[in-house]
Amino acid sequence: MSQGIQKNSSLRFHRNSRFLSAADGLLPALQQTRLQPVGVVDVIADTSEALGWKAIKSPLPASLIERELAPGDEVIIDFGTHCVGYFGLHCESAGSPPDAPAHLQFIFGETAAEMGVPFSEYSGWLSSSWLQQADIYLDVLPEQVRLPRRYCCRYVKIKVISTSAKFNLKLSDIHLNTLTSADSTSLARLHHPDALLDQIDQVSVLTLRNCMQEVFEDGPKRDRRLWLGDLRLQALVNYQTFEQNDLVKRCLYLFAGVTREDGMVSSNLFMKPDVIADDTFLFDYALFFVATLADYIAATNDQQTLEDLWPTAWRQVELALGRVSEKGIVQDSDDWWAFIDWHESLNKQAPAQGVLIYCLMKARELARKIDGENVTLLTAKIDELKNAAMEQLWDENKGFFVSGAAQQTSCASQIWLVLAEIGDNDFRSQLISRLLANPPEIGMNTPYMMHHFIDALISVGETRRATLEIKKYWGGMVQAGADTFWELYDPKRPDFSPYGSKLINSYCHAWSCTPAYFLRKYGL
Amino acid sequence: MSQGIQKNSSLRFHRNSRFLSAADGLLPALQQTRLQPVGVVDVIADTSEALGWKAIKSPLPASLIERELAPGDEVIIDFGTHCVGYFGLHCESAGSPPDAPAHLQFIFGETAAEMGVPFSEYSGWLSSSWLQQADIYLDVLPEQVRLPRRYCCRYVKIKVISTSAKFNLKLSDIHLNTLTSADSTSLARLHHPDALLDQIDQVSVLTLRNCMQEVFEDGPKRDRRLWLGDLRLQALVNYQTFEQNDLVKRCLYLFAGVTREDGMVSSNLFMKPDVIADDTFLFDYALFFVATLADYIAATNDQQTLEDLWPTAWRQVELALGRVSEKGIVQDSDDWWAFIDWHESLNKQAPAQGVLIYCLMKARELARKIDGENVTLLTAKIDELKNAAMEQLWDENKGFFVSGAAQQTSCASQIWLVLAEIGDNDFRSQLISRLLANPPEIGMNTPYMMHHFIDALISVGETRRATLEIKKYWGGMVQAGADTFWELYDPKRPDFSPYGSKLINSYCHAWSCTPAYFLRKYGL
Repeated sequence: MSQGIQKNSSLRFHRNSRFLSAADGLLPALQQTRLQPVGVVDVIADTSEALGWKAIKSPLPASLIERELAPGDEVIIDFGTHCVGYFGLHCESAGSPPDAPAHLQFIFGETAAEMGVPFSEYSGWLSSSWLQQADIYLDVLPEQVRLPRRYCCRYVKIKVISTSAKFNLKLSDIHLNTLTSADSTSLARLHHPDALLDQIDQVSVLTLRNCMQEVFEDGPKRDRRLWLGDLRLQALVNYQTFEQNDLVKRCLYLFAGVTREDGMVSSNLFMKPDVIADDTFLFDYALFFVATLADYIAATNDQQTLEDLWPTAWRQVELALGRVSEKGIVQDSDDWWAFIDWHESLNKQAPAQGVLIYCLMKARELARKIDGENVTLLTAKIDELKNAAMEQLWDENKGFFVSGAAQQTSCASQIWLVLAEIGDNDFRSQLISRLLANPPEIGMNTPYMMHHFIDALISVGETRRATLEIKKYWGGMVQAGADTFWELYDPKRPDFSPYGSKLINSYCHAWSCTPAYFLRKYGL
Repeated sequence: MSQGIQKNSSLRFHRNSRFLSAADGLLPALQQTRLQPVGVVDVIADTSEALGWKAIKSPLPASLIERELAPGDEVIIDFGTHCVGYFGLHCESAGSPPDAPAHLQFIFGETAAEMGVPFSEYSGWLSSSWLQQADIYLDVLPEQVRLPRRYCCRYVKIKVISTSAKFNLKLSDIHLNTLTSADSTSLARLHHPDALLDQIDQVSVLTLRNCMQEVFEDGPKRDRRLWLGDLRLQALVNYQTFEQNDLVKRCLYLFAGVTREDGMVSSNLFMKPDVIADDTFLFDYALFFVATLADYIAATNDQQTLEDLWPTAWRQVELALGRVSEKGIVQDSDDWWAFIDWHESLNKQAPAQGVLIYCLMKARELARKIDGENVTLLTAKIDELKNAAMEQLWDENKGFFVSGAAQQTSCASQIWLVLAEIGDNDFRSQLISRLLANPPEIGMNTPYMMHHFIDALISVGETRRATLEIKKYWGGMVQAGADTFWELYDPKRPDFSPYGSKLINSYCHAWSCTPAYFLRKYGL
């Protein structure tokens, strides 16, 4: 095992070349499919729509390729579903020989809202460079245009900015070469008798499919990166659908391949120009390395991978335990040390306590297979952390766990401590009932947090309620026209974005694809 | 000689494949030179500047490549002189690993004005696609950027539109791979004792050089095309400077290679995707095929080319004579039938009469070498046209030739009828003296028309005045900071554009490069 040091601003990283080379060997082939538009749309502002814009569909006019477009003309192409790929078209002139370059603008959108709201109005705090657009200047016509960047869209707005008085443009062969590493060979259709659940399953599967590229990306529009929190959920859905377990394995080796000097895995990796660990380190995400490895081993029984990666998993356990106070509680702080949910006001302490216990239980599963000596230690730690939580985080008057110095009551705290199996079954059942009857003010903002809510419901036997919640929440997105599940969805505030603009939200997001896991694994 | 028909909207064209293949065989090699910036500039609005903007130069800070650029930052690079070529740079990130695409904007300008005036303010009637700009999105850093289009510039404004909060950009290896087919081997420096004239000569030569690409382009920024009116003047300068006579020959074969069904040569050709004749046909420009061929034969005595192209030249004579009325005067009309000058109010009839006679004299030069039988006919026509002009266009009271139904008096009419050698030397001398003393209201707008003015001055022996006018007019551009001569220049209205915006004017334009011809040929 050869190792090197990578300097990343002020941080130092270990690179494990054997792991990286194993990951390289697992690089999946990308399937390409050439997709034609199914129609054109007009978009109109409509406050009854979740995202405020409605697409009025027309079949693709056969005359589109005969239509001459002059400066100012625009057309919105509809590919009929959410796609990831490379866009191209054929552009020719009509009229006199083109005596000026043709300037065309393309806007790509996962949703009708991105077609309706001018990008110039964007004022979110994430980089505007994520807004998918391109301006091209064609000096010679005809030209077979192939835009060099990968886009993520259902709709493409094509606008002619300028030609000259002497010629117009005709467009043809509009297409998207879609990309995915998902191979549907092992994929069975669910054929759920409930039409909405069946649709939810299909949308889940498409969401996962479009996020499956050279790695499990979090979102093919944004951030197009391998995040550990997303990977864990994608892997769970994958075991029930595509069963491309080598892609999970590849991602685990990648995380283990570039770790911080102290051995901590990063919250996310960049793949290009080389595998680079981001300098964002999160308590919960690092621990999910352990959970993801345990789920992978449970699905595959891949002993070699367990032997290779157990030291990395164990190191996450050690580092996480290092943050536990003498009193057995994860220490809180004001910086971005744990993710849990996209929520401005959420205190992370109690949910992180839950994540830690949950992942220690996953570690114990693995230790039983490879590191028996540590099983006892892990059991002792799990008990200690559970007891400490019950003693110090439980508020008997409120009937809820509280978090942080301000003793905050949040959904996330209850859910993660239920998933940590605190208390007996009755205790957890009653806690969940209380949560349902009287939800704390600090609620849930993301499908990611909703996943854990559903998981917690199932863990206490509330499968009927879990099904209803899936229909209500993910079904709400389906009814709002989602082709793939969104990064963010709050039925009461459909415009919600933690980034300051719905335009920059991802509308095909890995952490939102888990209904297919619940429906298929638990037969909901 | 094989011929085909090309359908070009409703017009039909003859393609002469032997001529086109001869032109192909003369395709010049392009010389590439990698140019580094010489400094950076700030631009400030300054009404004392000809184009309203001043560039304040600073040497290239050694620290530029160390400087971190954040969103909103911009830098204006100065290549020190006018260039044509492909732009590139190396872009890397500074800070955390780049977690969003980098969006950069480039604006290319031949002048400081293009750096100062936002392109969004452009409202001219030529296509805005000529405004040289590019937006790029870099998904992976570092990247060696090479923009795919050829640009024409002295200055490049580089603006960082967006990155993310986690990284900035560092730029290095900023360069332009300049292109020209001009080969300076035969070029001698003039070393004129008058410093301004010496500078005018050098600027002329650079103007020609930057227009010499695969053909003689009219302007490398706009229209980047082979125009006959420009070609004629470029060829004249070329014989005195680069002596790349094969490039003239190539352009003549190209014009003869694609002619209208009736044999008329187009005013201009497009080179890509194939040789295409524009559907703009101009009385004067078609006749200049004859003049350009005569000048080429005078310079080279290339008998084969004369034999090949004389029929095309003769056909232009026939077609032009077809427009002459029974009274021996070129018929006027309201459409764009002759160019003469960029002037809204100019009547073209009398100047066109001059152009016709001038080109018939050029045809006679050629006929003497190849088609003796037609010499007498040409002489008769020349005399008939001269007499008709004197009888019907001369206004004894005004002491000027008049043009069109409204009997307009213009500089262009006098100049072209002087160049047509109407009347005796004294008559023409007096006419020019009168023009100088009392210029008609309809003046001259372009260096192109100014060329013919200088030519007319020299033709009547006013070489001293010609020199003064060159110093005043082209010297004015030099003093205004021109690296190359501009398409349009009116000292009284430096903002003048026949296209509605100075931004779209070409600032390196073929028809403006002729001082080097006058200075070198006539030893001014």
